[in-house]
Amino acid sequence: MYRTHTCGALNAKNIGQTVTLSGWVQKIRDLGAVIFIDLRDRYGITQLSFNEENKAILEEARKLGREFVIQAKGKVVERSSKNNKIPTGDIEILVDELRVLNQAKTPPFTIEDQTDGGEELRMKYRYLDIRRNPVKNNLIFRSKVSQLVRNYLAGEGFIDVETPYLIKSTPEGARDFVVPSRMHPGHFYALPQSPQTFKQLLMVGGIDKYMQIVKCFRDEDLRADRQPEFTQIDCEMSFIEQEDILNTFEGLTKHLLKEIHGLELADFPRISYEEAMRRYGNDKPDIRFGMVFGDLTQAAQGKGFKVFDQQEAILGIAVPGAAGYTRKQIDKITDWVKRPQIGAKGLVYVKYNGDGSFKSSVDKFYNHDDLVQWAEITGAKPGDLILVLSGDLTPTRTQLSALRMEMAEQLGLRKPNEFAPVWVVDFPLLEWDEESRRFHAMHHPFTAPKPEDAHLLDTKPGKVRANAYDLVLNGNEIGGGSIRIHDKAMQAKMLGLLGFSDAEAKKQFGFLMDAFEYGAPPHGGLAFGLDRLVAILGGQEIIRDFIAFPKNNAGRDVMIEAPDTISPEQLEELHLRITE
Amino acid sequence: MYRTHTCGALNAKNIGQTVTLSGWVQKIRDLGAVIFIDLRDRYGITQLSFNEENKAILEEARKLGREFVIQAKGKVVERSSKNNKIPTGDIEILVDELRVLNQAKTPPFTIEDQTDGGEELRMKYRYLDIRRNPVKNNLIFRSKVSQLVRNYLAGEGFIDVETPYLIKSTPEGARDFVVPSRMHPGHFYALPQSPQTFKQLLMVGGIDKYMQIVKCFRDEDLRADRQPEFTQIDCEMSFIEQEDILNTFEGLTKHLLKEIHGLELADFPRISYEEAMRRYGNDKPDIRFGMVFGDLTQAAQGKGFKVFDQQEAILGIAVPGAAGYTRKQIDKITDWVKRPQIGAKGLVYVKYNGDGSFKSSVDKFYNHDDLVQWAEITGAKPGDLILVLSGDLTPTRTQLSALRMEMAEQLGLRKPNEFAPVWVVDFPLLEWDEESRRFHAMHHPFTAPKPEDAHLLDTKPGKVRANAYDLVLNGNEIGGGSIRIHDKAMQAKMLGLLGFSDAEAKKQFGFLMDAFEYGAPPHGGLAFGLDRLVAILGGQEIIRDFIAFPKNNAGRDVMIEAPDTISPEQLEELHLRITE
Repeated sequence: MYRTHTCGALNAKNIGQTVTLSGWVQKIRDLGAVIFIDLRDRYGITQLSFNEENKAILEEARKLGREFVIQAKGKVVERSSKNNKIPTGDIEILVDELRVLNQAKTPPFTIEDQTDGGEELRMKYRYLDIRRNPVKNNLIFRSKVSQLVRNYLAGEGFIDVETPYLIKSTPEGARDFVVPSRMHPGHFYALPQSPQTFKQLLMVGGIDKYMQIVKCFRDEDLRADRQPEFTQIDCEMSFIEQEDILNTFEGLTKHLLKEIHGLELADFPRISYEEAMRRYGNDKPDIRFGMVFGDLTQAAQGKGFKVFDQQEAILGIAVPGAAGYTRKQIDKITDWVKRPQIGAKGLVYVKYNGDGSFKSSVDKFYNHDDLVQWAEITGAKPGDLILVLSGDLTPTRTQLSALRMEMAEQLGLRKPNEFAPVWVVDFPLLEWDEESRRFHAMHHPFTAPKPEDAHLLDTKPGKVRANAYDLVLNGNEIGGGSIRIHDKAMQAKMLGLLGFSDAEAKKQFGFLMDAFEYGAPPHGGLAFGLDRLVAILGGQEIIRDFIAFPKNNAGRDVMIEAPDTISPEQLEELHLRITE
Repeated sequence: MYRTHTCGALNAKNIGQTVTLSGWVQKIRDLGAVIFIDLRDRYGITQLSFNEENKAILEEARKLGREFVIQAKGKVVERSSKNNKIPTGDIEILVDELRVLNQAKTPPFTIEDQTDGGEELRMKYRYLDIRRNPVKNNLIFRSKVSQLVRNYLAGEGFIDVETPYLIKSTPEGARDFVVPSRMHPGHFYALPQSPQTFKQLLMVGGIDKYMQIVKCFRDEDLRADRQPEFTQIDCEMSFIEQEDILNTFEGLTKHLLKEIHGLELADFPRISYEEAMRRYGNDKPDIRFGMVFGDLTQAAQGKGFKVFDQQEAILGIAVPGAAGYTRKQIDKITDWVKRPQIGAKGLVYVKYNGDGSFKSSVDKFYNHDDLVQWAEITGAKPGDLILVLSGDLTPTRTQLSALRMEMAEQLGLRKPNEFAPVWVVDFPLLEWDEESRRFHAMHHPFTAPKPEDAHLLDTKPGKVRANAYDLVLNGNEIGGGSIRIHDKAMQAKMLGLLGFSDAEAKKQFGFLMDAFEYGAPPHGGLAFGLDRLVAILGGQEIIRDFIAFPKNNAGRDVMIEAPDTISPEQLEELHLRITE
């Protein structure tokens, strides 16, 4: 062992002891006759002190540079000027033996909580970035969350089963990453987009509570903060109904919030998909704040305002305490909603002044009583600002939802240390896709229709709801799942609805449908996105900051430079040729 | 919830309660007026009873078949004929409500501890195989071992960090599985053979204790019981020496044996590679039993026995209590060593009889005193049988090692419930490969030479030892690791010795060598093979039995039929063409 203690361990109680520390040189203050060095390791910082009583070692210390790895032995002494910001701030080490374990070039950015390194540079030298407290603490936090999850679920009787990574390509949904087989030329494995079918087979196999923290892979065109490989807390249960799953994972989430933040949360509210869309324009509502949608369509039409009269939907929110916004501020909001990313055509506002009067951009068409009605519908109180968007229902909802989030951001209502989970339930089974002119599975093709809706499958498939549910935390979907189909005929019908031919269905999912014929129990499950869960529990939003070695937006690891070319011999062994 | 209790929960205390159970029909005994059904789930078996008091339900029960999934509600009553072999054997459920949750075709093999299904069939229907207690219990056992490992290491301050699966091909050692990149045509990711370089980068990043239970991938021609994907308990530590690593993971192994088998093991013996080869002819010696090699070369040569006189090595073992073996038995052993898989040319035996006399196959050349000396060298006692092989040193060691294991097997000395760990240390750094006429890394290219041997690197690289170590349990390598190089120049030199050009070294490992320039701490680590560890801790040897969904020896998943062809569209998107 190169140390007797870590750099976070020593305090006044250790004064007089001789200790050995190892770590990185964080900072050097050379005062001539005395040199102070902040020595850093994973556990903290301890001050080393060198003085003229030992000139040889003082000179050695002078040769050190930032991020040198050193070992220092000496006596723990009381500091003359204490630092009460760190646990070791009462002491320092009077060094009498110094050993350089490794030298270091000057790092390309500072190893400080606030670094001068940009994203690109930090990713290239991720191993240096990880030395910084914010990144290091995120990794430690993630490790702790994983452990809490595993132990909680083990306590609930879940078995951690590893499912295979080399499986078969079933490119429904996203694109698969594939792995050419050398031993079976022309054949490919695929990396799992999720262990979905395997966990269902475990249910058929009688493992009635399964969990796994597992990597999943999707070859998608990457958006900001999407990773080609990501981690799921993947779970499945048998002989249960939706209620049991919701209770189990609500229990897990409460446990995490209690252990991590000391919070005792009440039972999570539940809201149907339909209600979430109506009230928040969004199936992952952030309910830390209000600004629930008011439907002004009836109230606002037929009053001579042509813009409104010809729209499908007129929706408004009451922004709390914002009646005092200036013209300039409101113009800025108007510009914001008109940006192509949002796409609204315009914005109508109504100031509900503190004295009960109204001032709106549509005063010409609406009188006081009209606006009183608008205030009632949107829940506005004196002092609030009502913002109204109109257009076709779906895009207007999306636009107003974005505006709601933006206003909450501006008003500081999205508090990272406040946690407001909500279950969104009763998702539609299918989603119509205009482009491909067919239905897609809203959750995935293994989700069961609600028994009471199943009769609509042949006539009005778009109306069929599923026992599918999302757990939403602070406006982010952190988990989702469903009750699954466990009947061969129903699974075949579902795949048919999704446009699979019988042959395709059999090639891709025949093994699962076969399994359903040998006594498949009723089952269902849920998966949490661990990367996002950890980020949100950590009070942050960027998942990349909670991944040790993330890929960039082009799917590249810029540190190791992957992907990369492979040798012609490798290609030949795989019976592959690269085309232009 | 489809049940109030599991099928393993009820006993005499529950008599009189009304309960609901769900599970699979294990067995039906139709006695006409009464039907008994064994209902099975993950937790056990409970007897359901149907009788003529409720004729309707009796008739329903009559329609059930093996492996039907049912839900049964009824009263817990005392059994007339108790079954003391199962925890629920005192009671049965008098069923008054029965619901078929799913039907089942007759399974292709019996769902019993001893099944009539062959390996191939069981793999194709693995979901049915998993219903069998032996497989199910193995999976539960594996889950438990993983949890024990994680919690022990977390308690020791290890951080669980997920390293990436989409990395870069560095095909030193085994072949990589590669993953074509759609977004970067002609470029490939590779799946990790181990997270070796990433865990070293975590050390450079200051995460001084890292652990991960992680899948690794090797595209090798599969031997029996090798899997293309396998699981490692992967660990790395900084600011440590070999001694610290050995102590840490000896602690982990003791913890596992204590928690699983209630065993309190003494400190593990340590043996050098050289000594292991000399005493056991093997770097993974099974030390549950003796039969240590005796080197008879000096003692047996120059006595007129030509066969021995011209050999490099004459090695013997004393098989305890086997002096009474018949001529026929010894002939059988002789045939065994002469099989091509072993390859010995012949076998010399010496019976050390209980009365102190000797009887050998070479009595013509060796007198009583000679054989007394042989007995001393091999440690034989009266009643033992000395078996002697000769030839070139290396193959003779290998052959005698195999014979030693075979004799132990025959004598029942390889007891699955006895655990004899041993550390094998001081491995050579390099291994000469005759075929490629160059050195290979015995452990891997990142292993550091012992500082005291480093001066031999230029002159006698084959003589350089490494601080590399294996943990061997019952004749199986369950873990191995080394102290790593943390210096750029040394790493470059090592890659040079292994035949890398500077350009290749830079392309494949440049990122690691760059990292070493920014303050890399001394570090080292170890990885356990989880599949094998779990099998051995479970008193078994076939790792496939401890993997939920294993591949067969051709690397195929015969259940899902992977690998498989992919669509022309997928190939085109990947810019690939399949060649003949």
